[in-house]
Amino acid sequence: MATCRDTSPASGPGAAAPVGVFDSGIGGLTVVRALRARLPGESIVYFGDTARVPYGTKSAETITRFAGECAGFLLDRGVKLIVVACHSAASVALAELARRLPVPVVGVLEPGARALARATRRNRVAVIGTRATVLAGAYERAVREHSPGIEVLARPAPLFVPLAEEGWVEGEVPELVAHRYLDGFREEGVDALLLGCTHFPLLAGVIAAALGPGVRVVDSAEETAAEVATVLAGRGLAAAASAGRLCCYLSDIPPSFEALAARFLGGPPGEVVRASVGR
Amino acid sequence: MATCRDTSPASGPGAAAPVGVFDSGIGGLTVVRALRARLPGESIVYFGDTARVPYGTKSAETITRFAGECAGFLLDRGVKLIVVACHSAASVALAELARRLPVPVVGVLEPGARALARATRRNRVAVIGTRATVLAGAYERAVREHSPGIEVLARPAPLFVPLAEEGWVEGEVPELVAHRYLDGFREEGVDALLLGCTHFPLLAGVIAAALGPGVRVVDSAEETAAEVATVLAGRGLAAAASAGRLCCYLSDIPPSFEALAARFLGGPPGEVVRASVGR
Repeated sequence: MATCRDTSPASGPGAAAPVGVFDSGIGGLTVVRALRARLPGESIVYFGDTARVPYGTKSAETITRFAGECAGFLLDRGVKLIVVACHSAASVALAELARRLPVPVVGVLEPGARALARATRRNRVAVIGTRATVLAGAYERAVREHSPGIEVLARPAPLFVPLAEEGWVEGEVPELVAHRYLDGFREEGVDALLLGCTHFPLLAGVIAAALGPGVRVVDSAEETAAEVATVLAGRGLAAAASAGRLCCYLSDIPPSFEALAARFLGGPPGEVVRASVGR
Repeated sequence: MATCRDTSPASGPGAAAPVGVFDSGIGGLTVVRALRARLPGESIVYFGDTARVPYGTKSAETITRFAGECAGFLLDRGVKLIVVACHSAASVALAELARRLPVPVVGVLEPGARALARATRRNRVAVIGTRATVLAGAYERAVREHSPGIEVLARPAPLFVPLAEEGWVEGEVPELVAHRYLDGFREEGVDALLLGCTHFPLLAGVIAAALGPGVRVVDSAEETAAEVATVLAGRGLAAAASAGRLCCYLSDIPPSFEALAARFLGGPPGEVVRASVGR
């Protein structure tokens, strides 16, 4: 696994060190894709806890423990910043990780919530995600913290997950599903909608078309990449390299990983290594 | 939890003891539904390992350990027979459970595979399930063990899972999805198809309509219930009661459990108790 290490942890992470990203599964690769588009010089170490996916149905205590183990794994690979790409982990464990870890921590939740607050004119926004994310209510809290006057309609859209995994991202089926989930929002006067699940950027086109031009679609992966760029620049940690590398670690490698990764990442995943964390 | 116990384990399970059923989640409630329809006098203790769902993506070693823990939990409740309603657990751990446990064990796999072999005239059958079930190849093996001459086309149909959970079991979306997954089978001369996932019986109507009258749909939940009836009768363990009770134990109770259970069970789940197994 040493082949995937850019710097020795003993030397402390500098600007040449990679950015670490973790998620409960492979969905966080959409965040990696957004990071590579915005910061092509950064090397990235990804950890997907595929052996224990999903996190959303587990208790806050368990999610926090798992998130700590994922972060520890990335620190051992010498990362200079950690992105919590899992919405469940970001909503439950971000504050504790930020307090405990020796590197900056960016979650997928805050950047999206802030962008949503900026995007609305009518102060009426929507969030779609998995059932677990929506029931946890984290986006309502995050948006209201910044802008208490904004009304947040959060609803689950669970069918978008297997549609993304199947690669059914255009055509009749996803269009019908999008209308069924989203038509209500337009009727209720929403003018901005956040993709609150790492899988949903793959369906951004269908979702935007169903909502029509009056609703702005906010992609939390892109907003998170923008936040990472800001934090790295602010701390003098931006890479000077011109072409970053990607290394993916997974706690379990599903047989369909290559096809899924290509879909989520928009290209081959490069080196993929199986690695255990926790028990 | 003693309220859910029909007999003391110390006395050994007799005909009055309940039937135990376990699954990695709540899908196994379709097997409970089939059991209650066929054997209304039997009391049932259900254990759904919702805290660790899904099993299909985990290693055979882990699935076997989890299955042993679920079975042990049911034995502690004094069950007289154990139904392994989880396709992943049945395909990986059935032989070991049957060897180790002091009560008869029935898995969802064998009864469905046998029924499929009986149903086909052209010796060309199909199995649909989750990606994990299909990749494991267990149904091909089970059908060929009985009838080596039968050709088995096994393909994943993962979108049927959230369609069942959402309750989208009729109308345009499930119809389109069914045609997309199933049209190929008809063209390939298949004349029997097995619902190889506990969620799929909810979509049996849409699936049968998409396949047309030339393809017989085999429901593994119903076949499993028939097998349980045969085993209980053969061992003199059939209940004399007229109205059995149901008790559900879950390792985690999802907030949407009542609505899901009503869909899968066709009625309210009765007493639901949270219970831990394993670590």
